[in-house]
Amino acid sequence: MRTHTRYMTFQTPERRQFVRITDDVEQAVREAGVSEGMVLVSAMHITAGVWVNDDEPGILEDTLEWLDKLAPPSWKPPANDVAEQLGPDPGDFRHHRGGEGAPRAWPVVGDAHWKNLLVHHQVVLPITDGRLDLGPWQAVFYAEFDGGRPKRLVIKVLGE
Amino acid sequence: MRTHTRYMTFQTPERRQFVRITDDVEQAVREAGVSEGMVLVSAMHITAGVWVNDDEPGILEDTLEWLDKLAPPSWKPPANDVAEQLGPDPGDFRHHRGGEGAPRAWPVVGDAHWKNLLVHHQVVLPITDGRLDLGPWQAVFYAEFDGGRPKRLVIKVLGE
Amino acid sequence: MRTHTRYMTFQTPERRQFVRITDDVEQAVREAGVSEGMVLVSAMHITAGVWVNDDEPGILEDTLEWLDKLAPPSWKPPANDVAEQLGPDPGDFRHHRGGEGAPRAWPVVGDAHWKNLLVHHQVVLPITDGRLDLGPWQAVFYAEFDGGRPKRLVIKVLGE
Repeated sequence: MRTHTRYMTFQTPERRQFVRITDDVEQAVREAGVSEGMVLVSAMHITAGVWVNDDEPGILEDTLEWLDKLAPPSWKPPANDVAEQLGPDPGDFRHHRGGEGAPRAWPVVGDAHWKNLLVHHQVVLPITDGRLDLGPWQAVFYAEFDGGRPKRLVIKVLGE
Repeated sequence: MRTHTRYMTFQTPERRQFVRITDDVEQAVREAGVSEGMVLVSAMHITAGVWVNDDEPGILEDTLEWLDKLAPPSWKPPANDVAEQLGPDPGDFRHHRGGEGAPRAWPVVGDAHWKNLLVHHQVVLPITDGRLDLGPWQAVFYAEFDGGRPKRLVIKVLGE
Repeated sequence: MRTHTRYMTFQTPERRQFVRITDDVEQAVREAGVSEGMVLVSAMHITAGVWVNDDEPGILEDTLEWLDKLAPPSWKPPANDVAEQLGPDPGDFRHHRGGEGAPRAWPVVGDAHWKNLLVHHQVVLPITDGRLDLGPWQAVFYAEFDGGRPKRLVIKVLGE
Protein backbone atom coordinates (compact mmCIF):
# COMPACT_ATOMS: atom_id res chain seq x y z
CA MET A 1 0.00 0.00 0.00
CA ARG A 2 1.18 3.48 -0.79
CA THR A 3 0.15 6.77 0.75
CA HIS A 4 1.11 10.30 -0.13
CA THR A 5 0.22 13.67 1.37
CA ARG A 6 0.32 17.07 -0.20
CA TYR A 7 -0.69 20.38 1.32
CA MET A 8 -1.75 23.47 -0.59
CA THR A 9 -2.10 27.03 0.69
CA PHE A 10 -4.43 29.57 -0.87
CA GLN A 11 -4.58 33.30 -0.33
CA THR A 12 -7.27 34.41 -2.71
CA PRO A 13 -7.48 38.09 -3.64
CA GLU A 14 -11.28 37.86 -3.54
CA ARG A 15 -13.22 37.23 -0.37
CA ARG A 16 -15.05 34.44 -2.21
CA GLN A 17 -13.53 32.56 -5.12
CA PHE A 18 -13.52 29.19 -6.87
CA VAL A 19 -9.96 27.97 -7.57
CA ARG A 20 -9.54 25.06 -9.97
CA ILE A 21 -7.20 22.44 -8.50
CA THR A 22 -7.74 19.40 -10.74
CA ASP A 23 -4.15 19.49 -11.99
CA ASP A 24 -2.75 19.75 -8.46
CA VAL A 25 -4.70 16.69 -7.38
CA GLU A 26 -3.59 14.85 -10.52
CA GLN A 27 0.01 15.75 -9.73
CA ALA A 28 -0.30 14.43 -6.17
CA VAL A 29 -1.59 11.15 -7.61
CA ARG A 30 1.44 10.91 -9.92
CA GLU A 31 3.83 11.73 -7.04
CA ALA A 32 2.22 8.93 -5.01
CA GLY A 33 2.92 6.33 -7.67
CA VAL A 34 -0.54 4.91 -7.06
CA SER A 35 -2.31 3.24 -9.95
CA GLU A 36 -5.48 2.05 -8.15
CA GLY A 37 -6.96 3.80 -5.15
CA MET A 38 -8.65 6.89 -3.80
CA VAL A 39 -7.63 10.45 -3.12
CA LEU A 40 -9.16 12.63 -0.41
CA VAL A 41 -9.20 16.39 -1.08
CA SER A 42 -10.14 18.25 2.07
CA ALA A 43 -10.22 21.90 3.11
CA MET A 44 -8.63 22.38 6.52
CA HIS A 45 -10.93 25.29 7.34
CA ILE A 46 -14.53 25.70 8.40
CA THR A 47 -15.23 28.52 5.97
CA ALA A 48 -14.24 26.82 2.70
CA GLY A 49 -15.35 23.84 0.62
CA VAL A 50 -14.36 21.51 -2.19
CA TRP A 51 -16.72 21.15 -5.16
CA VAL A 52 -16.55 19.01 -8.28
CA ASN A 53 -18.38 20.61 -11.16
CA ASP A 54 -18.03 22.33 -14.51
CA ASP A 55 -15.21 24.80 -15.09
CA GLU A 56 -17.50 27.28 -16.78
CA PRO A 57 -17.65 30.91 -15.61
CA GLY A 58 -21.43 31.17 -15.88
CA ILE A 59 -22.19 28.29 -13.57
CA LEU A 60 -19.65 29.46 -11.00
CA GLU A 61 -21.13 32.98 -10.98
CA ASP A 62 -24.68 31.63 -10.80
CA THR A 63 -23.71 29.35 -7.94
CA LEU A 64 -22.12 32.03 -5.78
CA GLU A 65 -25.15 34.29 -6.30
CA TRP A 66 -27.43 31.40 -5.29
CA LEU A 67 -25.34 30.46 -2.23
CA ASP A 68 -25.67 34.08 -1.10
CA LYS A 69 -29.44 33.62 -1.09
CA LEU A 70 -29.50 30.24 0.65
CA ALA A 71 -26.75 31.16 3.14
CA PRO A 72 -26.99 34.97 3.27
CA PRO A 73 -24.04 37.06 4.48
CA SER A 74 -24.68 39.58 7.25
CA TRP A 75 -21.90 41.82 5.95
CA LYS A 76 -23.89 43.01 2.92
CA PRO A 77 -27.57 43.65 2.25
CA PRO A 78 -29.63 40.54 1.50
CA ALA A 79 -30.18 39.82 -2.20
CA ASN A 80 -33.97 39.74 -1.80
CA ASP A 81 -36.79 38.96 0.65
CA VAL A 82 -36.09 35.25 0.68
CA ALA A 83 -32.41 35.77 1.48
CA GLU A 84 -33.43 38.15 4.27
CA GLN A 85 -35.72 35.55 5.84
CA LEU A 86 -33.10 32.80 5.53
CA GLY A 87 -30.65 34.91 7.54
CA PRO A 88 -30.22 34.48 11.30
CA ASP A 89 -33.23 35.53 13.35
CA PRO A 90 -31.46 37.80 15.84
CA GLY A 91 -30.60 39.94 12.80
CA ASP A 92 -27.01 38.82 12.93
CA PHE A 93 -25.16 35.61 13.59
CA ARG A 94 -24.81 34.49 17.19
CA HIS A 95 -21.37 33.32 16.07
CA HIS A 96 -19.76 36.62 16.94
CA ARG A 97 -17.14 36.64 19.56
CA GLY A 98 -15.10 33.63 18.64
CA GLY A 99 -14.12 31.26 15.93
CA GLU A 100 -11.57 31.09 13.20
CA GLY A 101 -9.58 34.22 12.62
CA ALA A 102 -11.21 36.39 15.31
CA PRO A 103 -10.61 39.18 16.05
CA ARG A 104 -10.22 40.48 12.52
CA ALA A 105 -11.48 42.88 9.93
CA TRP A 106 -14.44 40.67 8.94
CA PRO A 107 -15.83 39.54 12.26
CA VAL A 108 -19.03 38.06 10.89
CA VAL A 109 -18.39 34.97 8.82
CA GLY A 110 -21.47 32.97 9.78
CA ASP A 111 -22.54 32.70 6.15
CA ALA A 112 -19.20 31.08 5.25
CA HIS A 113 -19.87 28.29 7.77
CA TRP A 114 -23.23 27.62 6.14
CA LYS A 115 -21.70 27.61 2.66
CA ASN A 116 -19.15 25.11 3.99
CA LEU A 117 -22.08 22.93 5.05
CA LEU A 118 -23.90 23.17 1.70
CA VAL A 119 -20.85 22.65 -0.51
CA HIS A 120 -19.17 20.18 1.89
CA HIS A 121 -15.54 20.61 2.86
CA GLN A 122 -14.12 17.49 1.22
CA VAL A 123 -14.41 15.05 -1.63
CA VAL A 124 -13.01 11.58 -2.38
CA LEU A 125 -12.01 10.87 -5.96
CA PRO A 126 -11.26 7.51 -7.62
CA ILE A 127 -7.84 6.67 -9.11
CA THR A 128 -7.73 4.19 -12.01
CA ASP A 129 -4.66 3.33 -14.12
CA GLY A 130 -2.71 6.03 -12.32
CA ARG A 131 -5.13 8.80 -13.27
CA LEU A 132 -8.01 10.64 -11.60
CA ASP A 133 -11.04 8.73 -12.82
CA LEU A 134 -13.31 11.71 -13.48
CA GLY A 135 -16.02 12.27 -16.05
CA PRO A 136 -15.22 14.59 -18.98
CA TRP A 137 -16.79 17.67 -17.35
CA GLN A 138 -15.74 17.10 -13.77
CA ALA A 139 -13.27 19.69 -12.50
CA VAL A 140 -12.18 19.98 -8.86
CA PHE A 141 -12.51 23.37 -7.15
CA TYR A 142 -11.34 24.77 -3.87
CA ALA A 143 -14.26 26.98 -2.88
CA GLU A 144 -13.16 29.93 -0.75
CA PHE A 145 -15.87 31.73 1.22
CA ASP A 146 -13.68 33.85 3.49
CA GLY A 147 -10.45 34.57 1.67
CA GLY A 148 -7.77 37.22 1.74
CA ARG A 149 -5.69 35.24 4.24
CA PRO A 150 -3.72 31.97 4.04
CA LYS A 151 -5.94 28.89 4.03
CA ARG A 152 -4.81 25.27 3.79
CA LEU A 153 -6.04 22.16 2.03
CA VAL A 154 -4.79 18.58 2.33
CA ILE A 155 -4.61 15.97 -0.43
CA LYS A 156 -4.21 12.39 0.82
CA VAL A 157 -3.62 9.60 -1.71
CA LEU A 158 -4.19 5.96 -0.72
CA GLY A 159 -3.79 2.91 -2.96
CA GLU A 160 -1.29 0.63 -4.60
CA MET B 1 -4.54 -4.69 -0.49
CA ARG B 2 -7.27 -5.29 -3.03
CA THR B 3 -8.98 -2.85 -5.34
CA HIS B 4 -11.84 -3.32 -7.73
CA THR B 5 -13.61 -0.99 -10.14
CA ARG B 6 -17.05 -1.24 -11.63
CA TYR B 7 -18.78 1.19 -13.94
CA MET B 8 -22.51 1.56 -14.37
CA THR B 9 -24.40 3.39 -17.10
CA PHE B 10 -27.87 4.83 -16.61
CA GLN B 11 -30.29 6.11 -19.20
CA THR B 12 -33.34 7.02 -17.18
CA PRO B 13 -36.67 7.43 -18.97
CA GLU B 14 -37.48 10.37 -16.69
CA ARG B 15 -35.55 13.61 -16.72
CA ARG B 16 -35.15 13.30 -12.96
CA GLN B 17 -35.19 9.97 -11.17
CA PHE B 18 -33.85 8.15 -8.13
CA VAL B 19 -32.42 4.72 -9.04
CA ARG B 20 -31.69 2.32 -6.22
CA ILE B 21 -28.22 0.79 -6.60
CA THR B 22 -27.56 -0.81 -3.21
CA ASP B 23 -27.41 -4.31 -4.71
CA ASP B 24 -25.02 -3.20 -7.46
CA VAL B 25 -22.63 -1.75 -4.89
CA GLU B 26 -22.96 -4.89 -2.77
CA GLN B 27 -22.15 -6.99 -5.83
CA ALA B 28 -19.02 -4.91 -6.57
CA VAL B 29 -17.89 -5.52 -2.99
CA ARG B 30 -18.34 -9.28 -3.45
CA GLU B 31 -16.49 -9.20 -6.77
CA ALA B 32 -13.61 -7.40 -5.06
CA GLY B 33 -13.19 -10.11 -2.46
CA VAL B 34 -12.70 -7.41 0.16
CA SER B 35 -13.79 -8.17 3.73
CA GLU B 36 -12.67 -4.92 5.40
CA GLY B 37 -12.44 -1.59 3.63
CA MET B 38 -14.32 1.23 1.93
CA VAL B 39 -16.22 1.66 -1.31
CA LEU B 40 -16.52 4.92 -3.17
CA VAL B 41 -19.68 5.41 -5.25
CA SER B 42 -19.34 8.44 -7.48
CA ALA B 43 -21.36 9.94 -10.31
CA MET B 44 -19.14 10.85 -13.25
CA HIS B 45 -21.38 13.78 -14.21
CA ILE B 46 -22.01 17.26 -12.90
CA THR B 47 -25.78 16.98 -13.13
CA ALA B 48 -26.31 13.90 -10.97
CA GLY B 49 -25.76 12.84 -7.36
CA VAL B 50 -25.55 9.87 -5.02
CA TRP B 51 -27.78 9.83 -1.95
CA VAL B 52 -28.13 7.36 0.90
CA ASN B 53 -31.61 7.40 2.36
CA ASP B 54 -34.87 5.53 2.72
CA ASP B 55 -36.26 3.56 -0.23
CA GLU B 56 -39.77 4.86 0.36
CA PRO B 57 -41.72 6.49 -2.49
CA GLY B 58 -43.10 9.32 -0.33
CA ILE B 59 -39.75 10.63 0.81
CA LEU B 60 -38.32 10.47 -2.72
CA GLU B 61 -41.28 12.41 -4.14
CA ASP B 62 -41.15 14.95 -1.30
CA THR B 63 -37.42 15.40 -1.82
CA LEU B 64 -37.60 16.06 -5.55
CA GLU B 65 -40.39 18.62 -5.00
CA TRP B 66 -38.28 20.30 -2.32
CA LEU B 67 -35.10 20.31 -4.44
CA ASP B 68 -37.12 22.05 -7.15
CA LYS B 69 -37.81 24.86 -4.68
CA LEU B 70 -34.26 25.18 -3.34
CA ALA B 71 -32.62 24.76 -6.76
CA PRO B 72 -35.37 25.87 -9.15
CA PRO B 73 -35.34 24.81 -12.81
CA SER B 74 -35.62 27.51 -15.44
CA TRP B 75 -37.31 25.09 -17.86
CA LYS B 76 -40.59 25.10 -15.98
CA PRO B 77 -42.51 27.66 -13.91
CA PRO B 78 -41.28 28.12 -10.33
CA ALA B 79 -43.22 26.16 -7.70
CA ASN B 80 -43.96 29.29 -5.66
CA ASP B 81 -42.62 32.75 -4.76
CA VAL B 82 -39.70 31.40 -2.77
CA ALA B 83 -38.58 29.16 -5.63
CA GLU B 84 -38.84 32.14 -7.98
CA GLN B 85 -36.59 34.26 -5.76
CA LEU B 86 -34.07 31.44 -5.36
CA GLY B 87 -33.66 31.23 -9.14
CA PRO B 88 -30.86 33.05 -10.97
CA ASP B 89 -31.17 36.83 -10.96
CA PRO B 90 -30.76 37.44 -14.68
CA GLY B 91 -34.02 35.49 -15.05
CA ASP B 92 -32.14 32.53 -16.46
CA PHE B 93 -28.87 30.78 -15.78
CA ARG B 94 -25.71 32.40 -17.07
CA HIS B 95 -24.62 28.82 -17.74
CA HIS B 96 -26.00 28.85 -21.27
CA ARG B 97 -23.66 28.39 -24.06
CA GLY B 98 -21.50 25.56 -22.84
CA GLY B 99 -21.23 22.69 -20.49
CA GLU B 100 -22.07 19.07 -20.46
CA GLY B 101 -24.16 17.85 -23.34
CA ALA B 102 -24.48 21.18 -25.16
CA PRO B 103 -25.87 21.76 -27.71
CA ARG B 104 -28.93 19.70 -26.98
CA ALA B 105 -32.67 19.64 -26.56
CA TRP B 106 -32.49 20.87 -22.93
CA PRO B 107 -29.98 23.68 -23.02
CA VAL B 108 -30.66 25.00 -19.55
CA VAL B 109 -29.52 22.59 -16.89
CA GLY B 110 -28.32 25.07 -14.28
CA ASP B 111 -30.70 23.66 -11.69
CA ALA B 112 -29.17 20.19 -12.12
CA HIS B 113 -25.74 21.59 -11.19
CA TRP B 114 -27.20 23.04 -8.00
CA LYS B 115 -28.96 19.80 -7.14
CA ASN B 116 -25.61 18.06 -7.68
CA LEU B 117 -24.15 20.45 -5.09
CA LEU B 118 -26.92 19.90 -2.53
CA VAL B 119 -27.08 16.11 -2.86
CA HIS B 120 -23.34 15.69 -3.43
CA HIS B 121 -22.04 13.58 -6.28
CA GLN B 122 -20.41 10.81 -4.27
CA VAL B 123 -20.48 8.80 -1.09
CA VAL B 124 -18.04 6.49 0.71
CA LEU B 125 -19.50 3.42 2.39
CA PRO B 126 -17.89 1.09 4.95
CA ILE B 127 -17.27 -2.61 4.26
CA THR B 128 -17.24 -5.00 7.25
CA ASP B 129 -17.11 -8.81 7.08
CA GLY B 130 -17.41 -8.63 3.31
CA ARG B 131 -20.70 -6.70 3.39
CA LEU B 132 -21.79 -3.11 3.02
CA ASP B 133 -21.98 -1.91 6.62
CA LEU B 134 -25.19 0.12 6.33
CA GLY B 135 -27.94 0.80 8.82
CA PRO B 136 -31.24 -1.05 8.30
CA TRP B 137 -32.92 1.83 6.43
CA GLN B 138 -29.96 3.03 4.39
CA ALA B 139 -30.38 2.46 0.65
CA VAL B 140 -27.99 3.86 -1.97
CA PHE B 141 -29.50 5.90 -4.82
CA TYR B 142 -28.15 7.28 -8.03
CA ALA B 143 -29.93 10.62 -8.27
CA GLU B 144 -30.44 11.70 -11.87
CA PHE B 145 -31.27 15.37 -12.45
CA ASP B 146 -30.78 15.51 -16.21
CA GLY B 147 -31.57 12.11 -17.65
CA GLY B 148 -32.71 10.68 -20.93
CA ARG B 149 -29.15 10.12 -22.10
CA PRO B 150 -26.34 7.75 -21.04
CA LYS B 151 -24.72 8.76 -17.75
CA ARG B 152 -21.92 6.93 -15.95
CA LEU B 153 -21.09 6.13 -12.35
CA VAL B 154 -17.95 4.54 -10.92
CA ILE B 155 -17.74 2.17 -7.95
CA LYS B 156 -14.23 1.80 -6.48
CA VAL B 157 -13.61 -0.80 -3.77
CA LEU B 158 -10.50 -0.58 -1.57
CA GLY B 159 -9.57 -2.91 1.28
CA GLU B 160 -8.24 -6.32 2.14
CA MET C 1 -2.69 -2.55 5.39
CA ARG C 2 -4.60 -2.13 8.62
CA THR C 3 -8.29 -1.63 9.18
CA HIS C 4 -10.23 -0.97 12.34
CA THR C 5 -13.92 -0.54 13.04
CA ARG C 6 -15.62 1.16 15.94
CA TYR C 7 -19.32 1.66 16.52
CA MET C 8 -20.87 4.36 18.65
CA THR C 9 -24.45 4.58 19.91
CA PHE C 10 -26.13 7.87 20.74
CA GLN C 11 -29.35 8.46 22.61
CA THR C 12 -29.57 12.22 22.79
CA PRO C 13 -31.92 13.81 25.33
CA GLU C 14 -32.85 16.46 22.77
CA ARG C 15 -34.69 15.68 19.58
CA ARG C 16 -32.01 17.58 17.67
CA GLN C 17 -28.47 17.93 18.96
CA PHE C 18 -24.86 18.29 17.82
CA VAL C 19 -22.54 15.88 19.67
CA ARG C 20 -18.82 16.47 19.38
CA ILE C 21 -17.01 13.21 18.57
CA THR C 22 -13.53 14.38 17.54
CA ASP C 23 -11.88 12.58 20.46
CA ASP C 24 -13.74 9.36 19.74
CA VAL C 25 -12.54 9.38 16.14
CA GLU C 26 -9.02 10.18 17.29
CA GLN C 27 -9.17 7.25 19.71
CA ALA C 28 -10.30 4.88 16.93
CA VAL C 29 -7.29 6.01 14.89
CA ARG C 30 -4.98 5.24 17.81
CA GLU C 31 -6.59 1.84 18.34
CA ALA C 32 -6.06 1.06 14.65
CA GLY C 33 -2.32 1.68 14.87
CA VAL C 34 -2.53 3.49 11.53
CA SER C 35 -0.06 6.28 10.88
CA GLU C 36 -1.05 7.15 7.29
CA GLY C 37 -4.53 6.67 5.91
CA MET C 38 -8.16 7.75 6.01
CA VAL C 39 -11.01 7.35 8.44
CA LEU C 40 -14.65 7.21 7.43
CA VAL C 41 -17.17 8.51 9.98
CA SER C 42 -20.68 7.59 8.93
CA ALA C 43 -24.11 7.80 10.54
CA MET C 44 -26.02 4.53 10.13
CA HIS C 45 -29.37 6.34 10.03
CA ILE C 46 -31.26 8.39 7.49
CA THR C 47 -32.23 11.09 9.95
CA ALA C 48 -28.77 12.10 11.18
CA GLY C 49 -25.58 13.58 9.75
CA VAL C 50 -21.89 14.16 10.36
CA TRP C 51 -20.55 17.71 10.16
CA VAL C 52 -17.06 19.13 10.52
CA ASN C 53 -17.12 22.68 11.79
CA ASP C 54 -16.42 24.98 14.71
CA ASP C 55 -17.22 23.85 18.25
CA GLU C 56 -18.76 27.19 19.13
CA PRO C 57 -22.28 27.34 20.64
CA GLY C 58 -23.37 30.34 18.55
CA ILE C 59 -22.70 28.73 15.19
CA LEU C 60 -24.38 25.49 16.22
CA GLU C 61 -27.51 27.35 17.39
CA ASP C 62 -27.53 29.52 14.25
CA THR C 63 -27.18 26.44 12.07
CA LEU C 64 -30.05 24.50 13.60
CA GLU C 65 -32.31 27.55 13.29
CA TRP C 66 -31.29 27.91 9.64
CA LEU C 67 -31.76 24.21 8.85
CA ASP C 68 -35.28 24.52 10.26
CA LYS C 69 -35.97 27.16 7.60
CA LEU C 70 -34.39 25.31 4.68
CA ALA C 71 -35.78 21.92 5.70
CA PRO C 72 -38.85 22.87 7.78
CA PRO C 73 -40.35 20.40 10.27
CA SER C 74 -44.05 19.66 9.99
CA TRP C 75 -44.28 18.97 13.72
CA LYS C 76 -43.99 22.64 14.69
CA PRO C 77 -45.11 25.92 13.11
CA PRO C 78 -42.84 27.20 10.32
CA ALA C 79 -40.30 29.82 11.40
CA ASN C 80 -41.51 32.31 8.78
CA ASP C 81 -43.08 32.60 5.33
CA VAL C 82 -40.05 31.24 3.52
CA ALA C 83 -39.92 28.17 5.75
CA GLU C 84 -43.62 27.63 5.15
CA GLN C 85 -43.17 27.71 1.37
CA LEU C 86 -40.16 25.37 1.52
CA GLY C 87 -42.27 22.76 3.31
CA PRO C 88 -44.00 19.93 1.45
CA ASP C 89 -46.83 21.02 -0.82
CA PRO C 90 -49.51 18.62 0.39
CA GLY C 91 -49.19 20.45 3.73
CA ASP C 92 -47.40 17.51 5.26
CA PHE C 93 -44.80 15.01 4.16
CA ARG C 94 -45.91 12.17 1.95
CA HIS C 95 -43.43 10.12 3.95
CA HIS C 96 -46.03 9.10 6.50
CA ARG C 97 -46.83 5.50 6.85
CA GLY C 98 -43.43 3.91 6.78
CA GLY C 99 -39.80 4.47 7.30
CA GLU C 100 -37.37 4.30 10.13
CA GLY C 101 -38.88 3.85 13.55
CA ALA C 102 -42.54 3.85 12.48
CA PRO C 103 -44.95 3.58 14.16
CA ARG C 104 -43.83 5.87 16.95
CA ALA C 105 -44.49 9.00 18.93
CA TRP C 106 -43.06 11.31 16.21
CA PRO C 107 -44.48 9.92 13.00
CA VAL C 108 -43.43 12.84 10.82
CA VAL C 109 -39.70 12.99 10.37
CA GLY C 110 -39.55 14.18 6.77
CA ASP C 111 -37.54 17.25 7.76
CA ALA C 112 -34.87 15.02 9.35
CA HIS C 113 -34.35 13.25 6.00
CA TRP C 114 -33.82 16.62 4.31
CA LYS C 115 -31.39 17.75 7.00
CA ASN C 116 -29.54 14.45 6.44
CA LEU C 117 -29.28 15.41 2.77
CA LEU C 118 -28.02 18.95 3.44
CA VAL C 119 -25.50 18.05 6.14
CA HIS C 120 -24.53 14.72 4.53
CA HIS C 121 -24.42 11.55 6.57
CA GLN C 122 -20.69 10.88 6.42
CA VAL C 123 -17.25 12.38 6.18
CA VAL C 124 -13.76 11.05 5.36
CA LEU C 125 -10.86 12.48 7.36
CA PRO C 126 -7.12 12.24 6.65
CA ILE C 127 -4.69 10.53 9.03
CA THR C 128 -1.08 11.76 9.07
CA ASP C 129 1.63 10.69 11.53
CA GLY C 130 -0.94 8.72 13.48
CA ARG C 131 -3.21 11.73 14.09
CA LEU C 132 -6.35 13.15 12.56
CA ASP C 133 -5.02 15.73 10.11
CA LEU C 134 -7.55 18.48 10.80
CA GLY C 135 -7.24 22.24 10.72
CA PRO C 136 -7.13 24.07 14.06
CA TRP C 137 -10.87 24.87 14.12
CA GLN C 138 -12.21 21.65 12.65
CA ALA C 139 -14.26 19.61 15.12
CA VAL C 140 -16.28 16.52 14.14
CA PHE C 141 -19.95 16.43 15.11
CA TYR C 142 -22.60 13.77 15.05
CA ALA C 143 -25.68 15.76 14.04
CA GLU C 144 -28.86 14.23 15.45
CA PHE C 145 -32.13 15.34 13.84
CA ASP C 146 -34.47 12.77 15.34
CA GLY C 147 -33.09 11.74 18.71
CA GLY C 148 -34.44 10.35 21.92
CA ARG C 149 -33.78 6.78 20.82
CA PRO C 150 -30.62 4.72 20.20
CA LYS C 151 -28.85 5.65 16.96
CA ARG C 152 -25.62 4.17 15.62
CA LEU C 153 -22.55 5.49 13.86
CA VAL C 154 -19.63 3.59 12.35
CA ILE C 155 -15.98 4.66 12.29
CA LYS C 156 -13.83 2.76 9.78
CA VAL C 157 -10.07 3.33 9.73
CA LEU C 158 -7.98 2.30 6.72
CA GLY C 159 -4.25 2.76 6.26
CA GLU C 160 -0.87 1.47 7.29
